[in-house]
Amino acid sequence: MALVVQKFGGTSVGDVERIQNVARRVVETKRAGHDVVVCVSAMSGETNALVSLAEQVSGGRPPHAREYDVLLSVGEQKTIALLAMAIQELGEPARSFTGAQMGMRTNSEHNRARIEAVNADVLHENLKGGSVCVIAGFQGVSDSGDITTLGRGGSDTSAVAVACALEADVCEIYTDVDGVYTADPRVVKDAQKLARIAFEEMLELASLGAKVLQIRSVKFAMRYGLPLHVRSSFSADEGTWVMPEEEVMEQLVVSGVTCNKNEAKIRLQSVPDQPGIAARVFTPLGDAGIVVDMIIQNYASDGSTDMTFTVPRADYSRALEIAKAAGDQLSSRSVDGDDSIAKVSIVGLGMKDHAGVATRMFEVLARKEINIQMISTSEIKISVVIDEAHSDVAVQALHAEFIDDLSD
Amino acid sequence: MALVVQKFGGTSVGDVERIQNVARRVVETKRAGHDVVVCVSAMSGETNALVSLAEQVSGGRPPHAREYDVLLSVGEQKTIALLAMAIQELGEPARSFTGAQMGMRTNSEHNRARIEAVNADVLHENLKGGSVCVIAGFQGVSDSGDITTLGRGGSDTSAVAVACALEADVCEIYTDVDGVYTADPRVVKDAQKLARIAFEEMLELASLGAKVLQIRSVKFAMRYGLPLHVRSSFSADEGTWVMPEEEVMEQLVVSGVTCNKNEAKIRLQSVPDQPGIAARVFTPLGDAGIVVDMIIQNYASDGSTDMTFTVPRADYSRALEIAKAAGDQLSSRSVDGDDSIAKVSIVGLGMKDHAGVATRMFEVLARKEINIQMISTSEIKISVVIDEAHSDVAVQALHAEFIDDLSD
Repeated sequence: MALVVQKFGGTSVGDVERIQNVARRVVETKRAGHDVVVCVSAMSGETNALVSLAEQVSGGRPPHAREYDVLLSVGEQKTIALLAMAIQELGEPARSFTGAQMGMRTNSEHNRARIEAVNADVLHENLKGGSVCVIAGFQGVSDSGDITTLGRGGSDTSAVAVACALEADVCEIYTDVDGVYTADPRVVKDAQKLARIAFEEMLELASLGAKVLQIRSVKFAMRYGLPLHVRSSFSADEGTWVMPEEEVMEQLVVSGVTCNKNEAKIRLQSVPDQPGIAARVFTPLGDAGIVVDMIIQNYASDGSTDMTFTVPRADYSRALEIAKAAGDQLSSRSVDGDDSIAKVSIVGLGMKDHAGVATRMFEVLARKEINIQMISTSEIKISVVIDEAHSDVAVQALHAEFIDDLSD
Repeated sequence: MALVVQKFGGTSVGDVERIQNVARRVVETKRAGHDVVVCVSAMSGETNALVSLAEQVSGGRPPHAREYDVLLSVGEQKTIALLAMAIQELGEPARSFTGAQMGMRTNSEHNRARIEAVNADVLHENLKGGSVCVIAGFQGVSDSGDITTLGRGGSDTSAVAVACALEADVCEIYTDVDGVYTADPRVVKDAQKLARIAFEEMLELASLGAKVLQIRSVKFAMRYGLPLHVRSSFSADEGTWVMPEEEVMEQLVVSGVTCNKNEAKIRLQSVPDQPGIAARVFTPLGDAGIVVDMIIQNYASDGSTDMTFTVPRADYSRALEIAKAAGDQLSSRSVDGDDSIAKVSIVGLGMKDHAGVATRMFEVLARKEINIQMISTSEIKISVVIDEAHSDVAVQALHAEFIDDLSD
């Protein structure tokens, strides 16, 4: 008998029929002899409807943060009640808990609160009493008793935090894909579902835009060594286990090839190569709330330097304006940019022990005559920025080189 | 400076525009120098949508009571968040409170919980800080921390209970009519809005089917001597004040004529006139959850008796079946019924001091050739059951006799 936390997203509970489907899944797990805690999101569409109401009331201005959380939290509250009813209809006792009721304590930063503690007593007590516990993801309560929400990816994080607090055996993340793939199957026909992946790799993949798990939840699970099982709501097949590095038996050199088309690059040509320059460029960007991803600086022979960086594509024109203002002050020869780029990355724990992976990557791209504009590396990741038009070819070629080959 | 509790029902907060309208109203009161607590219902239509979801999940069976309350309570939570935002948009600080947050303690009878205590500290503290407090009607929290709802008329009751706990100066009940009328204006052209009415009269009128105030809330206000002001959400005119008898200056003999078409009558002819008979008829009805209103028993000369009673029209056929079974056991000559009756009543504190009101009522009906089937009286009310077809004529004639005459 294990203690299992199951998390279902908005699509999985999108209507009554799907909620009943989730209930069947939960009851199966319960009847297999396990204790079950289910964490759910708002029904898909629900949050958007609430956001739109708030926008109407506040006339486009950002709504008051405290009240916004009171409003948004009704989404999950609706789902927990309906799911608890559906489980009871199948003959198993079930009780629902809002964030406040289950003791999800957060700080008081509304709309993006951080979890401070989970009081597991209520859930333990109800599990002991034989109930399935249905808990609201995304929401918590501050010390002053105010409702808070965790911001983007909050439901995954709620589920993982509760699983850690309960010392659960596994946290199952149900989603509309059936696991973590070596590449986007829409781009790479031979993309493979990974049976296991290490936390560190998953973190890199999530940071690179793989939407299957939220970064915060992976960090949480990694810190506590809690195994995650990413699997499909619509099938009983095993998905992908995300677990500590030492438990991932067969390490691939490269376990995933990703592509992110949500960035744009900006270049300041020929700025003085002296201390303090970077700060004068990036401080105003930070002040404008623009998050810079890659930064590359090249030394030129004439005592000047070129600086190139990437920003989210949605912030491109604002960032370009700010960069131009900074460039003027620094007597930059010119400031230009490009918003049709793609960042293609390979990720793998095995890289640490295998020299020459970067070289092989560059050779593959050279053979396809794809020009590399920027390069950035970490211990288990290599990213290159290329022309967006070549991204599919690049991903396919890299997948063939590093992954297909191994499985043949 | 006064402390004012304002209550707005589902129609008054039915969409964003109406919520903004309510916000303006609240802000006006606040800027006139008063402390304001606003109690709101779910947006109209919202509760029905939630009920329908629950019905879909539970396949027509009654949904689990605890979870049903978790579900229904999201309706008001949505409204309080939106209204607090709308008030803030107008430049006044506002904070919303769910039933649990504001300390509305109830017993744990889900779906029809009774208020046990209101902890006014949170609201007092926030009022002192200068905020408008926006509270969710209809919902509370049990000692075990479970969400409860108060059942029908809950929002009026919430508002009145909070006003009593805060020792407010008045509880304003905003509705889609502009006060309490001497009769239904759709039936009686000359129906007048009452400036003042005593609690006792209002209780009788509410019991007789006047929908403007819920019985529970009137009882609460009466017990604490809290003045209620029933008025329109859509106009600034004074409505009707409901207050202690001694403060209603000019007492009319009859302050209202009502008509209730939601009952049906059932008659057991010729049952033995002996002890225990009534119990054998009414115990099975009570067991079936059927509420009997009027009961009349006539003595016949042959040692038998006729018994007639009324039940809600929705329960008529079930009640008739039960009565027939009881009639068989009691060797009743026959059991029959009629579901096209109307109960017409006159209500007025002045009746206590004026003899002959009943006689005048019967004479008026006799002149219109309306046959009286049943009669029931209290100190400040006389009700008669007549053929439904004659109800409008009866109400108009009684209004002309007791009310129009006085105001001429």
